[in-house]
Amino acid sequence: MAEKVRIAVDAMGGDYAPGEIVKGAVEAVSERDRIEVVLVGIQEQVEKELAKYTYPKGRIQVVHAPEVIATEEPPVMAIRKKKNSSIVVAMNMVKNGEADAVVSAGSSGAILVGGQLIVGRIKGVERPPLAPLIPTSKGVSLLIDCGANVDARPSHLLQFAKMGSIYMENVIGKKNPTVAIVNIGAEEEKGNALVKDTFPLLKNCPDIHFIGSIEAREIPNGYADVIVCEAFVGNVILKLYEGVGSMFKNMLMQGLMSTVRAKIGALLVKPAVKKTLKSFDASEYGGAPLLGLRGLVVKTHGSSKAKEVKNSIIQCITFKEQQINEKIKKNLIQDEG
Amino acid sequence: MAEKVRIAVDAMGGDYAPGEIVKGAVEAVSERDRIEVVLVGIQEQVEKELAKYTYPKGRIQVVHAPEVIATEEPPVMAIRKKKNSSIVVAMNMVKNGEADAVVSAGSSGAILVGGQLIVGRIKGVERPPLAPLIPTSKGVSLLIDCGANVDARPSHLLQFAKMGSIYMENVIGKKNPTVAIVNIGAEEEKGNALVKDTFPLLKNCPDIHFIGSIEAREIPNGYADVIVCEAFVGNVILKLYEGVGSMFKNMLMQGLMSTVRAKIGALLVKPAVKKTLKSFDASEYGGAPLLGLRGLVVKTHGSSKAKEVKNSIIQCITFKEQQINEKIKKNLIQDEG
Repeated sequence: MAEKVRIAVDAMGGDYAPGEIVKGAVEAVSERDRIEVVLVGIQEQVEKELAKYTYPKGRIQVVHAPEVIATEEPPVMAIRKKKNSSIVVAMNMVKNGEADAVVSAGSSGAILVGGQLIVGRIKGVERPPLAPLIPTSKGVSLLIDCGANVDARPSHLLQFAKMGSIYMENVIGKKNPTVAIVNIGAEEEKGNALVKDTFPLLKNCPDIHFIGSIEAREIPNGYADVIVCEAFVGNVILKLYEGVGSMFKNMLMQGLMSTVRAKIGALLVKPAVKKTLKSFDASEYGGAPLLGLRGLVVKTHGSSKAKEVKNSIIQCITFKEQQINEKIKKNLIQDEG
Repeated sequence: MAEKVRIAVDAMGGDYAPGEIVKGAVEAVSERDRIEVVLVGIQEQVEKELAKYTYPKGRIQVVHAPEVIATEEPPVMAIRKKKNSSIVVAMNMVKNGEADAVVSAGSSGAILVGGQLIVGRIKGVERPPLAPLIPTSKGVSLLIDCGANVDARPSHLLQFAKMGSIYMENVIGKKNPTVAIVNIGAEEEKGNALVKDTFPLLKNCPDIHFIGSIEAREIPNGYADVIVCEAFVGNVILKLYEGVGSMFKNMLMQGLMSTVRAKIGALLVKPAVKKTLKSFDASEYGGAPLLGLRGLVVKTHGSSKAKEVKNSIIQCITFKEQQINEKIKKNLIQDEG
């Protein structure tokens, strides 16, 4: 029988915690045999939620963590001071080998800082990038880095490209994934200093399938599987994606409700449009991994409901099964040798 | 009677040149009395297009420019070598006081370089930013800078904020426009080095109505009137806006055509949806000005058709009438004094 995957889930992080987090954990263990979940949070609250469900008792455990890190808290301070917070306790379980992965919908800053300070980097990894999947008209692309390291250097971006390729190939199942760097023109000589310096490193790297620059306009078309960029730019892309998408949906709804004729038509088009818009939703794939750590840290959206939490937990199976961290280690050691 | 505004239009630039460019010029002079257009391009081609229309003959002149700068040409070289190209000839007319403004749908690079090298900067302006309007759910916002100057410094961004405010207030008519800087979090301490260094300059500037950081997610909501950012980030925002918008439209169309039921509904919702999507279209306002030059240079989209060309030409009236360049000069001298 295959090995169990043990996942520490931050039961207190996110807009719908602990209710939706606990529900997602119950759904994950019910759906997959190999998962064991440790719900980390305020015991009384977590157990009250758990009591609502029937589930294989042996596979969900509750670990008490009386403190909670709020989204607006300065992350470095919060991680250092709140030793009994759900994020810190969950990350310590990974550090101590008591869990394989952490899943949290809590403060992004605290997750990024905790990942580096508590879980720690794989030897050779300069900076661990946050790598969410974004929906495209062809499926999904990995956007790396999206918030972990502003003002990155070319060598960081090269590592992002390698780690992203390993993830995309082994977790998402995209064979020989294409890699492109976000740029303001298609030509090699275009770009800012960082892009110009990074371009030759990517071009000469034998481990990746580099296809050159990608203009932001081409991102939604699924032009590349792994989209490399500095964290500030990545964060802008990720947030704008959400922003433009939701403005568009709102405007469409307004249009559909604006006349009697449109309202009648809306009833007819609703199922088809709903199905279309659903395909523009990357949450099916789980959350965003923070790559290059000695353990897996997955950040799910702050507004995650049970489905996203469940998918983020299930994603950890493939990550462990495919030995992503071992592959990252091997890749980096090979380069140094 | 108010003064005439004389506009040199690059008849050869853009995907639909010279046909749609000439058509747009004819529509502009037909719609507004105060405009005189000089169509700069290959005389024979331009006159052949002009012959299709009836228009006030005295108000459109053709100036022969036998060379054309292609989009893929390295811009600095192209501007230096092709002295008889439509862009260079048109810009020289502004430089020599023979025209008030240039409108071009041609190579962005050549327009940016030509603007700086031929038309020249207003004394005191460190870098002239390209400032397109982007559609929001509240109307439009000015995104400044979008491609003129990568790797900008904080003092450049401060000037962008001031010039953008003057433009937004006087050309678009937004009183006391709000200014925000693109950032990866709402808090003052967030951001990369450039944003952190620029933030206090904007905060302490008495000439603008600074409201702090703007996350990319909030841009489509019209959270700020003037959105300040470094050109690389601005270019990513602009292009992604277009990319996500057009992916969304395509997916919606696919959804509407996917079932018989949806197809029938689509006929009913079409007028309302079309009207809604039309409001998500900034081309009504004209093209993107390159601010801070001794004359006006307006870059319209490469895919511009007659309507956008016409609006870009008409936009030049307000720019001149409101004495934008005089206001920019005054604002910068006041600061130095």
